[in-house]
Amino acid sequence: MNDVARLAGVSIKTVSRVVNGETGVHPATAERVLTAIDQLGFRCNLSARNLRRGTGTGTLGLVLGDLANPFYSVLTRAVEEVARVQGKHVLTGSSDEDPARERELVLEFCARRVDGLLVVPAGHSHGYIAHEINSGTPVVFLDRPPGNLDADTVLIDNAGGAALAARHLAEQGHREIAFLGDAPEIHTAAERLLGFREGCAQAGVPFVPDLVLMGPHTGESVAHALRSSLHRATALVTGNNQITIHALRALAGRPQRPALVGFDDFELADLVDPPVTVVTHDTWALGRSAAELLFARLNGDLAPPRRVVIPTRLLARG
Amino acid sequence: MNDVARLAGVSIKTVSRVVNGETGVHPATAERVLTAIDQLGFRCNLSARNLRRGTGTGTLGLVLGDLANPFYSVLTRAVEEVARVQGKHVLTGSSDEDPARERELVLEFCARRVDGLLVVPAGHSHGYIAHEINSGTPVVFLDRPPGNLDADTVLIDNAGGAALAARHLAEQGHREIAFLGDAPEIHTAAERLLGFREGCAQAGVPFVPDLVLMGPHTGESVAHALRSSLHRATALVTGNNQITIHALRALAGRPQRPALVGFDDFELADLVDPPVTVVTHDTWALGRSAAELLFARLNGDLAPPRRVVIPTRLLARG
Repeated sequence: MNDVARLAGVSIKTVSRVVNGETGVHPATAERVLTAIDQLGFRCNLSARNLRRGTGTGTLGLVLGDLANPFYSVLTRAVEEVARVQGKHVLTGSSDEDPARERELVLEFCARRVDGLLVVPAGHSHGYIAHEINSGTPVVFLDRPPGNLDADTVLIDNAGGAALAARHLAEQGHREIAFLGDAPEIHTAAERLLGFREGCAQAGVPFVPDLVLMGPHTGESVAHALRSSLHRATALVTGNNQITIHALRALAGRPQRPALVGFDDFELADLVDPPVTVVTHDTWALGRSAAELLFARLNGDLAPPRRVVIPTRLLARG
Repeated sequence: MNDVARLAGVSIKTVSRVVNGETGVHPATAERVLTAIDQLGFRCNLSARNLRRGTGTGTLGLVLGDLANPFYSVLTRAVEEVARVQGKHVLTGSSDEDPARERELVLEFCARRVDGLLVVPAGHSHGYIAHEINSGTPVVFLDRPPGNLDADTVLIDNAGGAALAARHLAEQGHREIAFLGDAPEIHTAAERLLGFREGCAQAGVPFVPDLVLMGPHTGESVAHALRSSLHRATALVTGNNQITIHALRALAGRPQRPALVGFDDFELADLVDPPVTVVTHDTWALGRSAAELLFARLNGDLAPPRRVVIPTRLLARG
């Protein structure tokens, strides 16, 4: 705080006024203070411990991929419910899978002095958060682990679920199974590909690199792949709910659909003809577990960082 | 503020400290101040005007039905995007259609000194918000109008859309058209029923009260209605996306489905067999318009309350 005051050329009291949103500071002065704060990376740490001792700001920050995606909206609702019982509210922000946007949101939420943060990482480098955690702001990562940081994380069993999918199709006699996954730099996508490969090995089915196509995917890229490189596959594993829906749309015209197992359940999967078998998981439990872990930290739990894994299961609808 | 200080038996400076989240106040004293604030209903008005002149808290509050419902999550994402451009973040809260919970969320958000509020009303009485609006906190209602309050509101053309649905089915020769709507005390549900009735009249088709069943609905209640009282209908209008999905599930076993038009589009409506014709609207535009109206108010627009109506259209997939 001293450094900020010095850099901005104002008193400590003025810095405090700006940070606490109090009145009586000239806009130009406030701007100078905020610029100084930006330059010094002086954020969550600001009186974090003191706020924790008092009532805090009563808000949690939740950074996720895209709130309009049903997976994330169920996650958010679950977090909201846990927060509600604890008298807190949730600030949400969508990163659109952009690491720069993720970082921006995290730092903005810290600057608003949230009591704690829940982050679905878009990027792979989270050293920038270590400082906030050390300064007393608990952070829990969910759905994907942080990069170069040992922190609380709640994941689903991605590899295990994808292995289930591969084994299920192998049991039905399929030998040429394609895998359509999301961008390989996304942790869940990489894990699912790994699990698919393991599942093939467990079932004694060849893993064919030519039948693997990782994203990012659009409706068009999926349709093109299914017409061309993946055409000979008799079965298909899709790596998330949106890829599954792209595939269903692409395959809708065909007299017979290849056998399909989608990762993530989705509304109406039971009403599509034929119904879609999926690898499902309890999205609500993922959000709830992460929020509960965050509150445990807020309530003084000082144990080493924890990793919680939510199980997956195959829901056969064939 | 004087009243709060008097009631809590503390100085005005102490009240100010508690409200601004500053440190140096004994927890028991802070508790006493917060209790006094609760008793006096002293909320958003607190230095609202001053905050507006400065930077504010940088947050908007969004109260809606259920964030896990895709309609609301798209709405929220649209609000988030507009807020982002303006450097603000969004606090969300789900009322679950409970008026008491709506009121609680609104007052909690006001107590957190949000810069503005967006509310999808669950209740019909919004006199309690008038005080906040008068004290300088802009409030925009969306999807449903407020009760006993003249305030900014963004709606979709519910009656017009439902009339489109009735006329579309009448044009296909249907004379016995059922209507499965949400709870009649929900504004959108009542408007859609009204529009359905008007559409029948416009098309010269009888409006049959026996073929109307209003909710709230569950999968079971919809299935039961379709087996019993609504069985003779050759066509069906469903009042929202969730009722449409309940109906599709209930009708899935039948060799032939009655003709169906659903209010609200939904993912995979084109992949169900046969595809589902819907009345659609731009949910993103609803959220965006409401957020833009709120920012116009925050930027000093003092015109009388406005009502914006987002059009609907029929998307035939028969």
